[in-house]
Amino acid sequence: MNSVSRRLLFALLAMTAAQVRAEDGYELWLRYHAIANESLREHYQQAATEIAAPSTLALAQSELSRGLSGLLGRPEPITIQSTRNGSIVLGTPRSSPLITQLDLSLPKAGNEGYVIRSLTHEGHRITVIAANSDAGVLYGVFHFLRLIQTQQPIDALDIHEAPRIQHRILNHWDNLDRSVERGYAGQSIFDWQKLPDYLDPRYTDYARACASLGINGTVPTNVNPSPIGLTAPYLRKYAALANVFRPYGLRVYLTARFSAPIEMGGLKTADPLDPAVRAWWKAKVDEIYALIPDFGGFLVKANSEGQPGPQDYHRTHADGANMLADVIAPHGGIILWRAFVYSKDEPQDRAKQAYSEFAPLDGQFRDNVVLQVKNGPIDFQPREPFHPLFGAMPHTPLVLEVQITKEYLGFATHLVYLAPLFEETLRSDTYARGKGSTVARVIDGSLFGYHTTGMAGVSNIGADRNWTGSQFDQANWYAFGRMAWNPLSSSRQIAQDWVKMTFTNEPAFVEPVVDMMMGSREAAVNYMTPMGLHHQMARTTHYGPGPWVSGGSRADWTSTYYNRADAWGIGFDRTASGSNAVEQYAKPIAAELASTKSTPEQLLLWFHHLPWDYRTKSGRTLWDELVIHYSAGVQTVSGMRRTWAGLQSYVDPQRFNEISAFLTIQEKEAQWWRDASIAYFQSLSKRPLPAGYAPPGHDLKYYESLCFPYAPGHAPLPDAKCE
Amino acid sequence: MNSVSRRLLFALLAMTAAQVRAEDGYELWLRYHAIANESLREHYQQAATEIAAPSTLALAQSELSRGLSGLLGRPEPITIQSTRNGSIVLGTPRSSPLITQLDLSLPKAGNEGYVIRSLTHEGHRITVIAANSDAGVLYGVFHFLRLIQTQQPIDALDIHEAPRIQHRILNHWDNLDRSVERGYAGQSIFDWQKLPDYLDPRYTDYARACASLGINGTVPTNVNPSPIGLTAPYLRKYAALANVFRPYGLRVYLTARFSAPIEMGGLKTADPLDPAVRAWWKAKVDEIYALIPDFGGFLVKANSEGQPGPQDYHRTHADGANMLADVIAPHGGIILWRAFVYSKDEPQDRAKQAYSEFAPLDGQFRDNVVLQVKNGPIDFQPREPFHPLFGAMPHTPLVLEVQITKEYLGFATHLVYLAPLFEETLRSDTYARGKGSTVARVIDGSLFGYHTTGMAGVSNIGADRNWTGSQFDQANWYAFGRMAWNPLSSSRQIAQDWVKMTFTNEPAFVEPVVDMMMGSREAAVNYMTPMGLHHQMARTTHYGPGPWVSGGSRADWTSTYYNRADAWGIGFDRTASGSNAVEQYAKPIAAELASTKSTPEQLLLWFHHLPWDYRTKSGRTLWDELVIHYSAGVQTVSGMRRTWAGLQSYVDPQRFNEISAFLTIQEKEAQWWRDASIAYFQSLSKRPLPAGYAPPGHDLKYYESLCFPYAPGHAPLPDAKCE
Repeated sequence: MNSVSRRLLFALLAMTAAQVRAEDGYELWLRYHAIANESLREHYQQAATEIAAPSTLALAQSELSRGLSGLLGRPEPITIQSTRNGSIVLGTPRSSPLITQLDLSLPKAGNEGYVIRSLTHEGHRITVIAANSDAGVLYGVFHFLRLIQTQQPIDALDIHEAPRIQHRILNHWDNLDRSVERGYAGQSIFDWQKLPDYLDPRYTDYARACASLGINGTVPTNVNPSPIGLTAPYLRKYAALANVFRPYGLRVYLTARFSAPIEMGGLKTADPLDPAVRAWWKAKVDEIYALIPDFGGFLVKANSEGQPGPQDYHRTHADGANMLADVIAPHGGIILWRAFVYSKDEPQDRAKQAYSEFAPLDGQFRDNVVLQVKNGPIDFQPREPFHPLFGAMPHTPLVLEVQITKEYLGFATHLVYLAPLFEETLRSDTYARGKGSTVARVIDGSLFGYHTTGMAGVSNIGADRNWTGSQFDQANWYAFGRMAWNPLSSSRQIAQDWVKMTFTNEPAFVEPVVDMMMGSREAAVNYMTPMGLHHQMARTTHYGPGPWVSGGSRADWTSTYYNRADAWGIGFDRTASGSNAVEQYAKPIAAELASTKSTPEQLLLWFHHLPWDYRTKSGRTLWDELVIHYSAGVQTVSGMRRTWAGLQSYVDPQRFNEISAFLTIQEKEAQWWRDASIAYFQSLSKRPLPAGYAPPGHDLKYYESLCFPYAPGHAPLPDAKCE
Repeated sequence: MNSVSRRLLFALLAMTAAQVRAEDGYELWLRYHAIANESLREHYQQAATEIAAPSTLALAQSELSRGLSGLLGRPEPITIQSTRNGSIVLGTPRSSPLITQLDLSLPKAGNEGYVIRSLTHEGHRITVIAANSDAGVLYGVFHFLRLIQTQQPIDALDIHEAPRIQHRILNHWDNLDRSVERGYAGQSIFDWQKLPDYLDPRYTDYARACASLGINGTVPTNVNPSPIGLTAPYLRKYAALANVFRPYGLRVYLTARFSAPIEMGGLKTADPLDPAVRAWWKAKVDEIYALIPDFGGFLVKANSEGQPGPQDYHRTHADGANMLADVIAPHGGIILWRAFVYSKDEPQDRAKQAYSEFAPLDGQFRDNVVLQVKNGPIDFQPREPFHPLFGAMPHTPLVLEVQITKEYLGFATHLVYLAPLFEETLRSDTYARGKGSTVARVIDGSLFGYHTTGMAGVSNIGADRNWTGSQFDQANWYAFGRMAWNPLSSSRQIAQDWVKMTFTNEPAFVEPVVDMMMGSREAAVNYMTPMGLHHQMARTTHYGPGPWVSGGSRADWTSTYYNRADAWGIGFDRTASGSNAVEQYAKPIAAELASTKSTPEQLLLWFHHLPWDYRTKSGRTLWDELVIHYSAGVQTVSGMRRTWAGLQSYVDPQRFNEISAFLTIQEKEAQWWRDASIAYFQSLSKRPLPAGYAPPGHDLKYYESLCFPYAPGHAPLPDAKCE
């Protein structure tokens, strides 16, 4: 084909691809549309003329072909056996004599890392993507494609990458009826009714997307599991999924209901020290491994929010976890034991409970038990201090659990980029071994020498065509994967990569959009829960503001329990004069938090109960400062909406319109949060708004009367009536 | 562009379209992939060189452009103002002087019909698509495109089409939490949480698909509605949908909960004769019309399955319907009052109840009330006799309600083409005015001179990418639309059109697939409920066989109530010696059904209780005949699976694989139905299987023990435990 026809071909390919189907976000960041810059495309074409790989790496090879044929406008993938200029050589030492022969420092890459190097071999300029495992090669391929998607140089590569975290796991809170607890992207992608007989091609696309980020584990079932979920028919369904996921390096884990020996096994007890109970679990584990030889292990939520657990039998969490650990150890599995607990009795301060229960158990867990700890001590609030368990368990590997789905951050319609939240936690200094003892260093094992490391993200994935309910929520899945691979990553760098891969490399688009993303989480903190406020949402649905929520079955499920607002002031006293939760932190932190003056103002009301007239660092009263923060949140969102409106020419119409509509919703709901919160707190503070700040659009009664029983993400309310 | 480049262009377009994205069924039958036969394509190209239409018909024009540019391999749509050879002229007499000037017999087309005619105008060969309304033109455009999709001649067209039914309505049983009662295609396509602010482009595609079939009404809310569904925020959501649907000729109707004046209005009663109740409804109706000026009316399920209704106040169905009719009449709306009722008290024979309650009310309803009657007297079973109300209400317009979703016919995974079922009902002769008084003539108004006519289909549409949960279930949506337009249509002809439009025109594919579809419903009857058996499915979920189901809250929700099987025999005696339901039919039918010998064998056990040794027409015993029917159902499905396996070369891989997997599921489940049914009935008949027929694979206890609490299509079961 001559150069003119090639150019014609390319133009047509580009045109038709756009024309055949509108962009709907299904492709995620794996968007291999031809590079429009012709000279750049030709430059890349020269550096990637063929792909040489043995057939055992067929999958990595096919991903590379798929990516390159899209990006470089080639009509079909190319595979040739011998090297020439521009060859990309994939492989492992086992698969390729050439790779064995080159000095690539592969041992340092470990089991999942990879090396990407430009070099000259027998007079040809080639690129080698090498690893010790096939999965490592696949990760390297996605890295190499990312370089082209983000238009980086690929002529003199010398990349050495290895994950800093071993277990990088998505937690799906997906129920067997395909509802998703706290899911805002439609039904579960897992169609249990049709499994194992029908394998939706989407399962493969899901595994591809996970592999592109290095995510290597998935828990497809809810942490509040059905007892039916471990029956034989369901195990066959998970096994079918595991077969699809395996080539992508993605392992299946399952949630285990602690009382399953009673409900499924007909035993009278689930006491972890009862031999019959242990025997039941051993048989169940053997049954699972017979179907899923690389089964990852169990994720367990025990003695929390009504779930059964070892404490029902006066045993400790360690007793429960160790029993399961013992029966799964021969197969190489692990137990992810969640530290998110709270007892049936109302605690004096729920923020203290996980620490109180688990810190004394440090050192009592088996080697294959890890504790999965949420980023903060309450529950995925827009801002929390880091969880005090980080730093407090030197002898027990701690896995960081973050929430990718936005239960408390505006569901799918608010643009809130979560990587800055993850980053804030990871970079928090626990002072456990002196300055520099960051949460990142706790969970990557370097601080205490953990033998096992992990990071878990509660998935935001559903059956919606765009996967996550909104285009921008894809960035949170993406960022979780990148940060689990390397918890020292920069949230801004990740945003840049994602925007370029998902939309365009045009700087006039990338820069304002990345700025918008980077500011979005602080905006949400401001319009929802500024200055350390937390847990102020509506009851049950968690949709919209509810700072007035009180009463009901337990106080620590209400807003007033946390805001403690009254005529005098606002905030939760967690110093020595209050719950003394500050004492759960290392001394330097505890000392800082004990004083209002040294407490960071963004956490002020988390730790202190202060009068409305308390003077903040700005010199303004606390009341004025709160109003200003709420208002700033709304203003930021208005700015985001305006910024986006100016970017129409860079985006396809469908995604542009969807995002525009969602930003309009977000602006409206940010105003609602601000107005409802101010209306409620003003009813107590009795203070005027600072000059120039508009009063809420309605009176407090109006906000209190709003009721949304059909908001998604929770089980249907009985009768679905508004009170 | 010269001819060679044009050919190159075409080849590339075709290639890339296929390459860019796998076929997943989203395009439905509106699949405008370029015609591969080059001479045919060029022939069509000459007959369609440009589209001339005024801007008021922009939508019809854009649909035609979209279709032609795809089918004829043109890179972009063409629109020019003057006519030349091959011009397609669209319009109405109002819009186009040319159309006024031609003698097209347009008055006969009515408000929604159209004329498509080939003619010579000022020396040019042109095609005119004309109607009295824009919607008529749009319907004509879809008809014209269908001719090309199915590769019919378009050179000498003289088509006059008008719908035989006025109201062609989809009934969505979609809840406000996006679950779909008896839905097997994922969540509701209506994303209430994001409406009215975000308009999913899918709403437009839905309206396009409806318009392509002439469907002109949709009820987006469940017949078991939430009291919250008529509040102002939801009305704004429906209004936003109505704005999307309006240009496609698609009107919105809503379900109304009869007790809404109590739940929403705070009244103490919903008595239809109470002036305050009437005033509440009048205000609500005015509120709706202020938002949706072309609102179609209410669909009401009253005094049925626990729903409130006028009988709660000792009023008749007519009292209830007329009150609503009166308040909606000034706006031009109608009331669709459902005849599917059964009282709180168990009837002696549920099949008789609708007739007993409604037949005496004939003539008592307002002009704008229509009664919506299911095809048969029980509930959408694989086979039922026609409903005795058809023919029994000469003074009350009856709308036929069919179920497109396959609640009792294998959910989304069984290939069961429903048009033969619809056709069987429509061609049933009621004898109400002598021979030839078919159900089709009842509902098209020609038999009794109804002033209003309608046909309603319970939707099978959901958020699944393929819309209906399976590729072949799209054919049921399609067939419903075509038959509602013309109830005299042939189910085979409709299948042929659909297969050609959705897959390919290759005769080697079309013929076996159409045969497979045409035989599929009888197969389901055979493996589920042969020879007039009915209501034999599992309790609650309706998933799988449950002929043993008995006990529970009411007998007429059990299988044994209907099969009446015991050691002596099987079947429901509905003759004079039994419930005498036969008397609800016109004399010639009643006489035929009163005798076992003249009752069609396919309905034998619907009307008669017979001994196991009863001799059927074949000379075999009833028992043997039943076993043979069950087995034949499984054999037919096995044949379907084998047929499909041989057609791989005609179908894209994704759809081929999906259908293959579903046929495998269907074969397995057909076997399960056959085996479980035989195991149960054999436990009573104590008779051996006829020679050569394999016994069930398991014992009866096994089949009785199977439990699927998470089967889709119903509200989650409390605790979701197996009994």
